[in-house]
Amino acid sequence: MKLGLVGLGKMGLNMRERLRERGLDAIGYDPNAADSDADSLETLVESLPTPRAVWVMVPAGAPTRQVIGQLSRLLAPGDLVVDGGNSRFTEDKLNADILAEHGIRYLDCGVSGGVWGRRNGYALMAGGDAADIDRMMPVFDALRPDGDREDSFVHAGPVGAGHYAKMVHNGIEYGLMQAYAEGYELLAAEDSIVDVPAVLRAWSKGTVVRSWLLDLLVQALSEDPGLDAISGYTEDSGEGRWTVEEAIAHAVPAPVISAALFARFASRQDDSPAMKAVSALRNQFGGHAVRPAETAGIA
Amino acid sequence: MKLGLVGLGKMGLNMRERLRERGLDAIGYDPNAADSDADSLETLVESLPTPRAVWVMVPAGAPTRQVIGQLSRLLAPGDLVVDGGNSRFTEDKLNADILAEHGIRYLDCGVSGGVWGRRNGYALMAGGDAADIDRMMPVFDALRPDGDREDSFVHAGPVGAGHYAKMVHNGIEYGLMQAYAEGYELLAAEDSIVDVPAVLRAWSKGTVVRSWLLDLLVQALSEDPGLDAISGYTEDSGEGRWTVEEAIAHAVPAPVISAALFARFASRQDDSPAMKAVSALRNQFGGHAVRPAETAGIA
Amino acid sequence: MKLGLVGLGKMGLNMRERLRERGLDAIGYDPNAADSDADSLETLVESLPTPRAVWVMVPAGAPTRQVIGQLSRLLAPGDLVVDGGNSRFTEDKLNADILAEHGIRYLDCGVSGGVWGRRNGYALMAGGDAADIDRMMPVFDALRPDGDREDSFVHAGPVGAGHYAKMVHNGIEYGLMQAYAEGYELLAAEDSIVDVPAVLRAWSKGTVVRSWLLDLLVQALSEDPGLDAISGYTEDSGEGRWTVEEAIAHAVPAPVISAALFARFASRQDDSPAMKAVSALRNQFGGHAVRPAETAGIA
Amino acid sequence: MKLGLVGLGKMGLNMRERLRERGLDAIGYDPNAADSDADSLETLVESLPTPRAVWVMVPAGAPTRQVIGQLSRLLAPGDLVVDGGNSRFTEDKLNADILAEHGIRYLDCGVSGGVWGRRNGYALMAGGDAADIDRMMPVFDALRPDGDREDSFVHAGPVGAGHYAKMVHNGIEYGLMQAYAEGYELLAAEDSIVDVPAVLRAWSKGTVVRSWLLDLLVQALSEDPGLDAISGYTEDSGEGRWTVEEAIAHAVPAPVISAALFARFASRQDDSPAMKAVSALRNQFGGHAVRPAETAGIA
Repeated sequence: MKLGLVGLGKMGLNMRERLRERGLDAIGYDPNAADSDADSLETLVESLPTPRAVWVMVPAGAPTRQVIGQLSRLLAPGDLVVDGGNSRFTEDKLNADILAEHGIRYLDCGVSGGVWGRRNGYALMAGGDAADIDRMMPVFDALRPDGDREDSFVHAGPVGAGHYAKMVHNGIEYGLMQAYAEGYELLAAEDSIVDVPAVLRAWSKGTVVRSWLLDLLVQALSEDPGLDAISGYTEDSGEGRWTVEEAIAHAVPAPVISAALFARFASRQDDSPAMKAVSALRNQFGGHAVRPAETAGIA
Repeated sequence: MKLGLVGLGKMGLNMRERLRERGLDAIGYDPNAADSDADSLETLVESLPTPRAVWVMVPAGAPTRQVIGQLSRLLAPGDLVVDGGNSRFTEDKLNADILAEHGIRYLDCGVSGGVWGRRNGYALMAGGDAADIDRMMPVFDALRPDGDREDSFVHAGPVGAGHYAKMVHNGIEYGLMQAYAEGYELLAAEDSIVDVPAVLRAWSKGTVVRSWLLDLLVQALSEDPGLDAISGYTEDSGEGRWTVEEAIAHAVPAPVISAALFARFASRQDDSPAMKAVSALRNQFGGHAVRPAETAGIA
Repeated sequence: MKLGLVGLGKMGLNMRERLRERGLDAIGYDPNAADSDADSLETLVESLPTPRAVWVMVPAGAPTRQVIGQLSRLLAPGDLVVDGGNSRFTEDKLNADILAEHGIRYLDCGVSGGVWGRRNGYALMAGGDAADIDRMMPVFDALRPDGDREDSFVHAGPVGAGHYAKMVHNGIEYGLMQAYAEGYELLAAEDSIVDVPAVLRAWSKGTVVRSWLLDLLVQALSEDPGLDAISGYTEDSGEGRWTVEEAIAHAVPAPVISAALFARFASRQDDSPAMKAVSALRNQFGGHAVRPAETAGIA
Repeated sequence: MKLGLVGLGKMGLNMRERLRERGLDAIGYDPNAADSDADSLETLVESLPTPRAVWVMVPAGAPTRQVIGQLSRLLAPGDLVVDGGNSRFTEDKLNADILAEHGIRYLDCGVSGGVWGRRNGYALMAGGDAADIDRMMPVFDALRPDGDREDSFVHAGPVGAGHYAKMVHNGIEYGLMQAYAEGYELLAAEDSIVDVPAVLRAWSKGTVVRSWLLDLLVQALSEDPGLDAISGYTEDSGEGRWTVEEAIAHAVPAPVISAALFARFASRQDDSPAMKAVSALRNQFGGHAVRPAETAGIA
């Protein structure tokens, strides 16, 4: 099977390699990548046998919308586009409609696995029509880990359901990471614990909390036992926000996932306007000392 | 009525003045205060008519325990001690027992009102026996605001109940302040709001959120509209922690009060060990960039 | 000044009365109200002198959009519409644009005060152009409490800023209520507190936590000391959700307001799917007993 | 090596079997177990060669304290006791002191692995002196999973550090479970997700969120896809509470672990007193309808 792959960033490049290792003819295009296989999106499309299959792996939002728009003009009825990026699920219906006007099929596919996916395989959550899913199954099977298909692939529902499932996956991921992080901080604060990385490593096998994320934290601590080289400044990339927004839309309580999201917001603030207000209030009613802004950084 | 007052800090001094203005003969002692009325605790005790009444207004913990111990040796059977400080309610039974060995009576009394209490009056939450409460009622009536006694005084229950009620009062206070603070930060973050202090001031009358704390926040913003002069570094003084601990002991969900407490903890961290762990994890699985620790402060 | 008032629900009726008591000629219309002053929106519009002023006080969402649409066809250039309902701020730009096509001016105005506003006055947060604000000032002055205008009225910013300020006001309100509620539950759980309503009442004067909401809770407890007659099932009406969504959009941590929102969601669940999952997990790894679904209600 | 094992509950029985399979001579005693190897604690002690080693595996609190007290009278100087139960770390110093008066050594050891430990092995976190750790290493090695010792065993620090590490482990466990549970509930609430168990199963391999807990949730859902047979009523067994208390003691923010704990508290309430208060407040200020308590259960 021959597949066009648009976007050769960190994820796209690794996926191209895995597909090739598994015997699929993956042809990649990226305007910025030195190792692009085609010098334009047009060339990529022309090089594919009909009916074509194109996997889009570019940043969510405007970049994905732009590629979908271009493909809607370049592809032909019966061709199939998969958005494998981290798009918000609300984009998928729009993408599907744009392509459907030209008779082009559409699937959305959430992809998990990060930089380790090339070796371990990627877990895939797909949304769309069953016939389109079947058509792409050789690609899905090549990308996912070996073993039972059901352990790493799901046809989650209609268009959008794949990204929805991936969004929830990432929301959970926020909560899991924060849970480990709170435990890590507490261990590090307790004098009687003599070697925090050793405690975490001892949870790797046999415990209730063993997981891949724990393995990664053990790995990070083996490289930098006090995490001295990095700051706590932590980005968020959208899925956590969308998960909380969906929880609100469905009236689902999400205290853990939202707490994890807010902790990231707070990590990026040099000082907290809210806590300035609390400090000002304490000073007003109780005469409690405030710390002048100038010296705040010199704790 | 003549009353001994031990501790002439910010609160004690103001209370002595209010008691005197209301016609009570309050004699204060403080080893560190220039305007102490007695040169020792012994002198203070000797100057009081029997049965004596002594109000202790010193910091919670060791200082209060020390004064209670001294009073247990200086006072006589039938005398009465009131702990008006911010002691943990668990201290009260211990204090009462120590004094009871000498036939000395004990009340605990939570006092709210801060630096404004001298003028506005203090709200009082007392714990102990009804007969002891009655005996101190002239003092309570002088300290509390004018108007119905029930609006600013309560005999909350047996020894300890006064401090328990005060502890919950302060726990609520944490939550209230954080709620205003989150709203303040959101208004400050929104471009369309041209004058944040003016919005908060417009809530002073007629709204559902009007309160004394709001008035104080309006006052603070009138003095420093962007709260530029102060940092967000915010202390906590025990009652918030005890409230969450009691919530846990009673299996009462306390998400708001605990969130307010944790926000204070976070405000005092230069960098968050937990968020370092989250950032390290994101780097491990996704190759997401971390911010080196060295540049974290230079956002 | 003559004002058209569309919507005579709980709020609209009270506002009409207050406006009339203050000497304004308020003419109300409501298709469902027995005491509507006009038998159609057309009649209402025709009865107003030009340039007309119409205050819309109908439920947010579709009902408001429908009235705005009708008014865009009935009013004339230079007329002015105020949306005083609880619309999401994002609606205001749309409303203003629809009306602007017909040369009609638009203001949004958040109104706080509830059923007590008729007597106490309403606090008002307005968004729009200064000239339109000035034109409506007699109405604003009649609605708001007596005293300094700045204590209960603000021109918060351009169109939308009024509803934005009101949204944040309500978000804060969620947090304040939950803080009092957590404290109430903890007092009620503690045996040593003999009279919970009496403790809350004693906070009415002099304390840091005194507020109008506290007064209302005291009032509710005087009517039903154990709150036995009502359930904990608690609706939410949009502003809390929008506040958290805006906090997310601005990367502002909002742990307290979101916790208050989630507590309402949870209050409406007969059983929690999330907690079923936690219970299932505990059973899987630890053999911990689960409570069969059938008996869950018979605790 | 011969080991006395006190307590043959779910955990103790499994551990005895694993130890025997690994060639250790484990002799169990339990007053209530049909398959106790000794008819009294005295008999058990007499059957052990000196210096003796006794592993205590009984419920935390009074039962463990009672057994430690008995052992302090039955054992001889140089004997060694290990508390492998889920005791609070603060108990360990007390236990060690009681035993030390009789010249008896003490280790604490947190054990994770649940009902699966017999087959998979248990992870172990031990606290105490290095010489005592060395002496028990054959037992630790028999209990833990195969592979590198450091992946499932840690000498965490002095007496108490083992239980401290286990406590934090369980606190993290609370947060992890709640994160998965929130995601599960959101997927179940979303119409486009056609098969929630299938989505979770597809995360088993290759994803960032893969873990043993996820495997268990997949297993639970394979047995009961809608979790219809169980209620959300969820107990907590102490470690979650202690973790939050320790977070408070160390001023470590723990929003995720505390949210998970509070969700369990809430799951056990037929109705929430706090939400009754919120509902009462809404009724007071806005005339919002409350749901009468009588019909609350009939939603």
